[in-house]
Amino acid sequence: MGKNNKDFVKEITPMEVDFPQWYTDVIRKTDLVDYSPVKGFMVIKPYGYALWENIQSFLDGRFKDTGHKNCYFPLLIPESLLQKEAEHVEGFAPEVAWVTHGGKEKLAERLCVRPTSETIICSMYSKWLKSYRELPYLYNQWCSVVRWEKSTRPFLRTSEFLWQEGHTLHETYDEAQAETIQMLNIYKEMAEDLLAIPVVTGRKSEREKFAGAYATYTMEALMHDGKALQAGTSHNLGQHFTKAFDISFLDRNGDMQNPYHTSWGVSTRLIGGVIMVHGDNRGLVLPPRLAPNQVVIIPIAQHKEGVLDKAYELKKQLDDMGLRVELDDNENYSPGWKFNEYEMKGVPVRIEIGPRDIKNNQVMVARRDTLEKEAVSMDGLAENINRLLETIQKDMLEKARKHRDANTYYVESFEDFKEKMEEKPGFAKAMWCGDRECEEHVKAETGATIRCIPFEQEDLGGKCHFCGKEAKHMVYMAKAY
Amino acid sequence: MGKNNKDFVKEITPMEVDFPQWYTDVIRKTDLVDYSPVKGFMVIKPYGYALWENIQSFLDGRFKDTGHKNCYFPLLIPESLLQKEAEHVEGFAPEVAWVTHGGKEKLAERLCVRPTSETIICSMYSKWLKSYRELPYLYNQWCSVVRWEKSTRPFLRTSEFLWQEGHTLHETYDEAQAETIQMLNIYKEMAEDLLAIPVVTGRKSEREKFAGAYATYTMEALMHDGKALQAGTSHNLGQHFTKAFDISFLDRNGDMQNPYHTSWGVSTRLIGGVIMVHGDNRGLVLPPRLAPNQVVIIPIAQHKEGVLDKAYELKKQLDDMGLRVELDDNENYSPGWKFNEYEMKGVPVRIEIGPRDIKNNQVMVARRDTLEKEAVSMDGLAENINRLLETIQKDMLEKARKHRDANTYYVESFEDFKEKMEEKPGFAKAMWCGDRECEEHVKAETGATIRCIPFEQEDLGGKCHFCGKEAKHMVYMAKAY
Ligand SMILES: [Zn+2]
Ligand SMILES: [Zn+2]
Repeated sequence: MGKNNKDFVKEITPMEVDFPQWYTDVIRKTDLVDYSPVKGFMVIKPYGYALWENIQSFLDGRFKDTGHKNCYFPLLIPESLLQKEAEHVEGFAPEVAWVTHGGKEKLAERLCVRPTSETIICSMYSKWLKSYRELPYLYNQWCSVVRWEKSTRPFLRTSEFLWQEGHTLHETYDEAQAETIQMLNIYKEMAEDLLAIPVVTGRKSEREKFAGAYATYTMEALMHDGKALQAGTSHNLGQHFTKAFDISFLDRNGDMQNPYHTSWGVSTRLIGGVIMVHGDNRGLVLPPRLAPNQVVIIPIAQHKEGVLDKAYELKKQLDDMGLRVELDDNENYSPGWKFNEYEMKGVPVRIEIGPRDIKNNQVMVARRDTLEKEAVSMDGLAENINRLLETIQKDMLEKARKHRDANTYYVESFEDFKEKMEEKPGFAKAMWCGDRECEEHVKAETGATIRCIPFEQEDLGGKCHFCGKEAKHMVYMAKAY
Repeated sequence: MGKNNKDFVKEITPMEVDFPQWYTDVIRKTDLVDYSPVKGFMVIKPYGYALWENIQSFLDGRFKDTGHKNCYFPLLIPESLLQKEAEHVEGFAPEVAWVTHGGKEKLAERLCVRPTSETIICSMYSKWLKSYRELPYLYNQWCSVVRWEKSTRPFLRTSEFLWQEGHTLHETYDEAQAETIQMLNIYKEMAEDLLAIPVVTGRKSEREKFAGAYATYTMEALMHDGKALQAGTSHNLGQHFTKAFDISFLDRNGDMQNPYHTSWGVSTRLIGGVIMVHGDNRGLVLPPRLAPNQVVIIPIAQHKEGVLDKAYELKKQLDDMGLRVELDDNENYSPGWKFNEYEMKGVPVRIEIGPRDIKNNQVMVARRDTLEKEAVSMDGLAENINRLLETIQKDMLEKARKHRDANTYYVESFEDFKEKMEEKPGFAKAMWCGDRECEEHVKAETGATIRCIPFEQEDLGGKCHFCGKEAKHMVYMAKAY
């Protein structure tokens, strides 16, 4: 068993040695995804998809609680629609897939596979909306989108990914702004409560905002290697699209006006974040609320009388508690092999039960997050495991927060920033002048970008840390996925 | 109120006058879908999508109960993969959308937008499968597919539609056959228990089977106008694809062999079936288990003291019973307008509550399916409404079954068949010789096709009703959507 263990772990490159390779190894060994015959397109395998289903279920409930309804807009968008909003077409046209033929016929107009759906949705909203009485429009869709990427990494950047995109219309700017922030807060709640990932929220700089947005808000998470991941965005689109698409309504004063518009989305990229925030050198570590299987029961010496019976009895108790439990009684694999397998797959709690445990009215309980293992009485086991899962969920968020805080620092000067970005990447808090040129310069010199202008501003002095001009905002800087 | 009522109904063409126009009117008036800027592609609006969500929820639960897992395969399929199975490419190549450019670059190989995913999935199965120990593979995906259609009708035939596609691999032919039939039976259960649509199940003729299948099984429903709708199919694909894609495994005897393969799907087309089986000249009639709103409460004279309070109190009682309830207290519309609106939208039960009702400790309860209306005591109302919904669900299936049976007849001769197909379309039971030529001839002469060779065979004589040769099967014939 010890031997198996070592052999197995050897197949995952330690993250300290080569983080990107560690990521690839974990993904490959845990059956989350596979590469497809089309470059940059991935297959999401059942274990990976189950994670997405749990994210969907959490968010879909929160979207509906806040009055949103799901719908479905077409996959293909005419080129002329994509071109209606100037910034938007500039941002997306270089990375879309073009359909030019239907069956044997060449199409009169090219159609793009949706990279995002603002344009097709606005063309419909323009047709539908008449009066303020119909507002707000609060719609969302779950679908896949395609963006032709030059270099791709599973979950983090792929030419096709799964996501949801909300698209809302409102009577006033204030209502649209409130919706934008409400949805960002729902994302933050999901990241922290479901994924156990702490996030910084704030506004994007003009350079980093969504193509066509008035303002983009983001949540940013810090990965194990000190790089940031943009984990979800919510856009106040102002009237940019509603004017370009001639969406108008009769307002309360009897005047025609353009409504205010938002869109917001998260994608399967979140799964990459879960891997890179919680994973270790043994593989995945999944937070209990997200884990497809929260508990795995592994019988020891399962051929001995009574072991399997007792194991199934425990499984039933845990099932009845509403937990997601797997019992692995496959005879083709040893308990040691199974320990490794479920550790690698990140199952939060392992229960071992053998003849000696049964004699002592106990089981062995191992936590995936801390790798601690202890004997636990069979009396009241289900309640104890349920409590343990909640503890693990809380501890994982706390641990990630500590890691994030330990890798967040104040910038002293541009020189200091450059050094730290090389030696100890993480979130750097700095003052910024607000100029795009300064921002471009920092990126060119260091590879780091402004992740956000956080809602929680701190006063770190009056000068821009990068160019010395008068400072406008405190920002979070980092290299990013 | 009477006036409103008439005016309103006038906008839906009576189905006896023009059934296709009735269908279009109902769809348009009830906000289920809209036409998009791309011909043949539709937008599924929230009320239509809510129907699909209920179908998804029912099926996804049954799929998981029977051991299936969800996953996601890429949207785009290389042309070379589509061509690997000869019958399949012949069937689908004429109706696929081709992606030829990614961003500004012309692709080395064209990619088709998936019309169905057997080919891309088999290419992955070929890479994954090693041993019989891994079998069966029981995977499903929820997605959209594109088939370039010349003429389209919302839900029934569109160039893009939403569906699920299950794709399984098995060690033996018998297991694959059992899976094929199991999934067909789950579809039948969904059609009858959720949609209240009775279906005939059986095998497709060689001409009508799926391109590349060994055998296709189908469920067929009869619409109000006497035309059939293929409502779901399950394919035993034998080893056609597993050989073409070189999927093989080490079997229990240590030999390499190709596994047996199934696929099965239902789509948003089911919603078209619900409309055409249950709808009437006032609009939709939704079975309670499928209906997004099962009950609508409409207050009468809602400005009078106590009316809205009592209405909300009733809503809470019904909510607590687990029912899906809407209370419409919009002051901009009259109760009469609302009666029409919710009738048209097919809400199964309407509750009216006004000052006189409150005085009498009663409410008025109207059934959408029978249009009956009666006073019901407020005591125990929630239990009574819950029971009523179950009654409506049962009655709607029964009514649809009676309609189906009344429009199912025995064929006496080819002449008799031709007459009946003209005068009184419906399901015609006939004996058939099994020859494709005979089948083609019948279709050319009458427009009717063999819907299925039903599992429940009847002996209607020894001769083919169409050509007089020796009969092989009893078949259901009909014109179809
Ligand atoms: Zn500066
Ligand atoms: Zn014949």
